[in-house]
Amino acid sequence: MSDSPSTSYRDAGVDIEAGEQFVERIRSAVESTRTSGVLGAVGGFGGLFAPDLAGMAEPVLVSSADGVGTKLKLAFVTGEHAGLGGDLVRHCANDIAVLGARPLYFLDYLATGRLSAEVMAQLVEGMAAACREEGIALLGGETAEMPGFYADGEYDCAGFIVGVVDRPRIVDGSGIRPGQRLVAFPSTGLHTNGYSLARRVVDNAADLTLDSTPAELGGATVAQALLAPHRSYTREIRELMADERAGAQGFAHVTGGGIGGNLKRILPANVDAVVTPGAWEAPPIFELLRRTGNIPQADMRSAFNLGVGLVAVVSGEMDLGVPIGEIVAGSGRVRWDD
Amino acid sequence: MSDSPSTSYRDAGVDIEAGEQFVERIRSAVESTRTSGVLGAVGGFGGLFAPDLAGMAEPVLVSSADGVGTKLKLAFVTGEHAGLGGDLVRHCANDIAVLGARPLYFLDYLATGRLSAEVMAQLVEGMAAACREEGIALLGGETAEMPGFYADGEYDCAGFIVGVVDRPRIVDGSGIRPGQRLVAFPSTGLHTNGYSLARRVVDNAADLTLDSTPAELGGATVAQALLAPHRSYTREIRELMADERAGAQGFAHVTGGGIGGNLKRILPANVDAVVTPGAWEAPPIFELLRRTGNIPQADMRSAFNLGVGLVAVVSGEMDLGVPIGEIVAGSGRVRWDD
Repeated sequence: MSDSPSTSYRDAGVDIEAGEQFVERIRSAVESTRTSGVLGAVGGFGGLFAPDLAGMAEPVLVSSADGVGTKLKLAFVTGEHAGLGGDLVRHCANDIAVLGARPLYFLDYLATGRLSAEVMAQLVEGMAAACREEGIALLGGETAEMPGFYADGEYDCAGFIVGVVDRPRIVDGSGIRPGQRLVAFPSTGLHTNGYSLARRVVDNAADLTLDSTPAELGGATVAQALLAPHRSYTREIRELMADERAGAQGFAHVTGGGIGGNLKRILPANVDAVVTPGAWEAPPIFELLRRTGNIPQADMRSAFNLGVGLVAVVSGEMDLGVPIGEIVAGSGRVRWDD
Repeated sequence: MSDSPSTSYRDAGVDIEAGEQFVERIRSAVESTRTSGVLGAVGGFGGLFAPDLAGMAEPVLVSSADGVGTKLKLAFVTGEHAGLGGDLVRHCANDIAVLGARPLYFLDYLATGRLSAEVMAQLVEGMAAACREEGIALLGGETAEMPGFYADGEYDCAGFIVGVVDRPRIVDGSGIRPGQRLVAFPSTGLHTNGYSLARRVVDNAADLTLDSTPAELGGATVAQALLAPHRSYTREIRELMADERAGAQGFAHVTGGGIGGNLKRILPANVDAVVTPGAWEAPPIFELLRRTGNIPQADMRSAFNLGVGLVAVVSGEMDLGVPIGEIVAGSGRVRWDD
């Protein structure tokens, strides 16, 4: 035996009991998301899900991984964590819904310096609430306590989603043709992109803080406007897909890269999308950030969704959404009709 | 227009061009993992995978999320990143293989303060190499540049895996009965658990550093021994499941919580597992850490795998693995026969 002082796992900053208490606390949140496909109980090595594949010619699994980026910093400052859990779920759900998929289940990864069971539970409860709304099972996850890795009170989180679509029903933009129209569905604010730029602007501003209530925000603080939830578009996408008159050809979820960066991902190589600036109304937080930080237009457009959370390309008639441009012959680019 | 200095996205620490160069660089690594189920190209909103479900009575999807924990700190110190990418893939693959699932595809989440395309690419190339070995498609992922969130040169990563098993072939431990045997498959070292404790021990040691080459490590440095790869057990599990004579009833992947914490997860409520300490040979890094840190036995057993990466519970005859104990009547506990 050595004479050196004994080093236990708890000394090293890892508290297995706190971890187990956390698992106990979130059990009911997780159970509340249970759907008919879920097999087995919380705590196994992997989550088990039996998908309903009835009537499908060729089931195709659709998956996406996402984070919420530096929007987290706002949660650290304000203590509002549950909203980010919901943001993560809806971001993931939108990413696979745009391909025509029905979301089935979600898993999360949470990493923190020292486990605050309260904060982590709020986050997971926010995920669970969004999962219930979307009919998605919260199937499992990993919570890692990594001492010395994250600052006290800070954490990172990622989400992972699995959905299914019948192969003939995949929406991939291949039917996009000149003459079709771009229709926008509004965002509530930044959703989960552009926060590094937004925080930089607020940090550098002489006359604006997270607690400011500039008139254009209608009584909300800057922090509240920045924390507006990432919207779900799964219902709108489902309705558009079910409405043959609308002729939905493609959907772009507007996240990192902005309207242009995301719309480009679904364009065939022989068309351009022409976006008409000013065709829609944007939440006032965007103009506030632009004016305060004197942000160049190109950066506004690549960092932010500018009020558009989803773009649908449609060939037919529809009552939903706001027309914001059209498809023309071209070379796979998105152009702004400035 | 404001007179304040202009703030661009790049000023805020986000470099979209570096991000795009990174995507370009990893494209061939990702493509190299392509399997017959993969549809579409890199870059869509979600990854698409058409699983081969032929001959299955009821396909069940099996998923797991994992990180590599503070083993990352060793990669930051040594500059060896590719190995951790492989660790992440194999950790995930083991977690679903123990339920009887065949891994189909993997997605990653990488988060960093400032994107080093070189480091991130090494990590993804390590993931891709492990995916190729396992026949798993690297279907997608998220790389988040989060300025001010991670220290310079640091990052976190998580992996998500999806596999499939036919429902009647799920291995869940429900057939475990008194008289059956525990068979161990060796680990190469700590795999991906217990690193906070290990680093604490080395940091506090008067006569040991990461560069030390104590005789018992046979020429390897402490850092090299600690970075030994997380082994895959998917082949062994497949072979055991195919061998009816072996009568495999359950598998426990030994990760956080050690042999006891993981074996407990598959035990029915009316049996105990009795582990015979000393029945197997452990890599010397464990005894070195115990002696150097004077780590209590209970902590050794809950923090480390102690040389056992996988435990199989078998009712029959088999040539693989090392017998390390047995199943007796009990109450769902793991006991050490000290």
